[in-house]
Amino acid sequence: MKENLAVATLAPTFMTPNKVKGYSVDEVEKRLDAQNPIEGVEKQDLPTPALLLDLNRLENNLATMNEYAKSQSVNLRPHAKTHKCAEIAHRQIAMGALGVCTATIYEAEQMDKAGIGGILITSELVGPNKIGRLVRLTKKRPDTMAVVDSAEHATQLSEAAGTAKVDLNVLIDIDPVGRRTGVAPGETAVELAKTIDRMQNLKFCGVHGYSGASSHVVGFDARKKHSIQYMTPVIESFRKMQRDGLPAEIMSGTSTGTYNIDPALGMTELQVGSYVFMDIDYRIIGGNGENTELYEDFQQSLTVLATVISQNYSDRATLDSGLKAFATDRDFGPEVVGYRGVKYRFGGDEHGILTLDEPDPAVNLGDKVELVVPHCDPNVNLYDRMYCTRGNKVVDVWKVIGRGHG
Amino acid sequence: MKENLAVATLAPTFMTPNKVKGYSVDEVEKRLDAQNPIEGVEKQDLPTPALLLDLNRLENNLATMNEYAKSQSVNLRPHAKTHKCAEIAHRQIAMGALGVCTATIYEAEQMDKAGIGGILITSELVGPNKIGRLVRLTKKRPDTMAVVDSAEHATQLSEAAGTAKVDLNVLIDIDPVGRRTGVAPGETAVELAKTIDRMQNLKFCGVHGYSGASSHVVGFDARKKHSIQYMTPVIESFRKMQRDGLPAEIMSGTSTGTYNIDPALGMTELQVGSYVFMDIDYRIIGGNGENTELYEDFQQSLTVLATVISQNYSDRATLDSGLKAFATDRDFGPEVVGYRGVKYRFGGDEHGILTLDEPDPAVNLGDKVELVVPHCDPNVNLYDRMYCTRGNKVVDVWKVIGRGHG
Repeated sequence: MKENLAVATLAPTFMTPNKVKGYSVDEVEKRLDAQNPIEGVEKQDLPTPALLLDLNRLENNLATMNEYAKSQSVNLRPHAKTHKCAEIAHRQIAMGALGVCTATIYEAEQMDKAGIGGILITSELVGPNKIGRLVRLTKKRPDTMAVVDSAEHATQLSEAAGTAKVDLNVLIDIDPVGRRTGVAPGETAVELAKTIDRMQNLKFCGVHGYSGASSHVVGFDARKKHSIQYMTPVIESFRKMQRDGLPAEIMSGTSTGTYNIDPALGMTELQVGSYVFMDIDYRIIGGNGENTELYEDFQQSLTVLATVISQNYSDRATLDSGLKAFATDRDFGPEVVGYRGVKYRFGGDEHGILTLDEPDPAVNLGDKVELVVPHCDPNVNLYDRMYCTRGNKVVDVWKVIGRGHG
Repeated sequence: MKENLAVATLAPTFMTPNKVKGYSVDEVEKRLDAQNPIEGVEKQDLPTPALLLDLNRLENNLATMNEYAKSQSVNLRPHAKTHKCAEIAHRQIAMGALGVCTATIYEAEQMDKAGIGGILITSELVGPNKIGRLVRLTKKRPDTMAVVDSAEHATQLSEAAGTAKVDLNVLIDIDPVGRRTGVAPGETAVELAKTIDRMQNLKFCGVHGYSGASSHVVGFDARKKHSIQYMTPVIESFRKMQRDGLPAEIMSGTSTGTYNIDPALGMTELQVGSYVFMDIDYRIIGGNGENTELYEDFQQSLTVLATVISQNYSDRATLDSGLKAFATDRDFGPEVVGYRGVKYRFGGDEHGILTLDEPDPAVNLGDKVELVVPHCDPNVNLYDRMYCTRGNKVVDVWKVIGRGHG
């Protein structure tokens, strides 16, 4: 099992190629969009590369996170930058989430169009273009929230809100580790909060503090120590604001890697994202349960389906899925599901190479192969749709929205 | 200049933020789609991250390649997997190209819908789904061509074509370097060609041989040696087929890196792709002209526009463009245009970090920054549209088609 350590064991998918129907993309969509019995479309019928979502696993993941949040009396506002999918957002909200987080105003606009409210945009919206769009979204949905990390930025927001005669809800963005956005915790943050609270047309609501650097610390104990070290000053700043009489009600942050660490520190809501899909990147950080080596709190629900398109050598085969089919930002590539002795490496923009070492089952021309994705967020970003499956059956197709633009 | 060695020197873009209008994505498109005077949209008005295409540079690149091909009496069938853009394909064909290559049947279908013919799909289409779609495309456009690299695959094609009562045009795919698809050159290839030529409903047209391994060999002389070494056996196989009486008329292959090497070997048509945009990846392979260190035959026409969204420290600033805005498959990241003392590094899915070392000009909150992309093909694949510019003016918007699906 060493070779596929990071991939959950799934049963190999036994496919019967003679039943393949050769649908085009449009035809598959039409077939799946038709409401009366969706029947007869199986994984093997799909054009590859295709992004697959295992609905049983997704539902398990949603339920697990939801139960945990309830048990800790902490709210969920899951991050939609992971899934970019209205159907998943609706399910999260139906289970009790306050809304969703988005990384961009474009994602927020697309979620709004799909009927999703309670949106917190977790990256600074700077300049007239994005602030103008935030103002319009807030006019339509007054519960929209944005983040701010400087007085200059806050002034831009305040002026635009004043002109438009709307109040913008803002969280002060505190940077736990000094990585990318946010103000330093402590007195600087508290003073900025006071400045913002005095500004016209800004409604100060609390703190956004996301310790991305803690999320992927390997080993639960080390991760816990890291997150406590860096999040404590952020939450202390939040409490100081409250003690100083500021209307700080929201303390938002936390990743899938720290969901079972941060609530005890005093978070009021969690921005967890990757738990819906999981990926290799998270699986190798190790868990807090029986298996300390692998993080198994959530199940890997997201895969890419590929086809063997060339098989002229006994020790390798070529897939139709390469750099455009998988996120490439990690040191490791995707991992093959359900085979022994088969490994994937990138073979250029359009191809992947399977190295074969006594493969079991055998790999043949035309075979469909499923691969777990290295890093879920940028992997979803490569596709326009995900095919929802139960076993070998394809039961729905969901659009990926809010990608490809600013 | 050492620090930006791989980036062509462009004049810094002086932008006047007070003129920004805050258009949404839809509004920018509407404004650009309206045929009567497209006016007033400038780079600074665009939501970021945005993919920018400098039309003057694109036109120069198209003309340069076209003139070279004419001078060598070799045909062009440029690769559309690079640009995935019908407007660019139409321009290539208007200048004399035979059609375009595509990597996938989906790209081919989208090009067909946009009125593009003469399509060669350069990766094996295996299994009923993709072969079924090839058959349909060939029925509509009888000049469509596909590649094949085994008798088993050829049999699939022949049977599907027979059932559909259509003739499929095929090239035998010969693998110069043993990398991903194709049959070995020499007797194996010639025998397979004869087998294919005897099959019902397959029209054997020649050879596809693409030495991707030669494209990025650094240094013109080394690259020339590499390409000659690996392409010669392929072209010898092509000539042997002709001598043996096979109807081998097409010898197709060649990248932007070897466009001025391979024609002399006996190519009948070139599949060059990246020359339309260029990228850092190609720029550092070195040229054959005055500058042996940088490859300057073509100009860098493709950039990403980003916004500085956080600026709380003197030695760094944060952009709104990260792993979802740039291809990440190379060892190097994007490079900043028009600044000294400013370097980019990835800061996660949504962010990039600019490190500032006496930056000139200064970097301020809200500034727009242009960056040359590391690797053009997968970078285009991340966007749905490219904004066409002349200087600071945005003069058109072109759709990226055929991405996100198999």
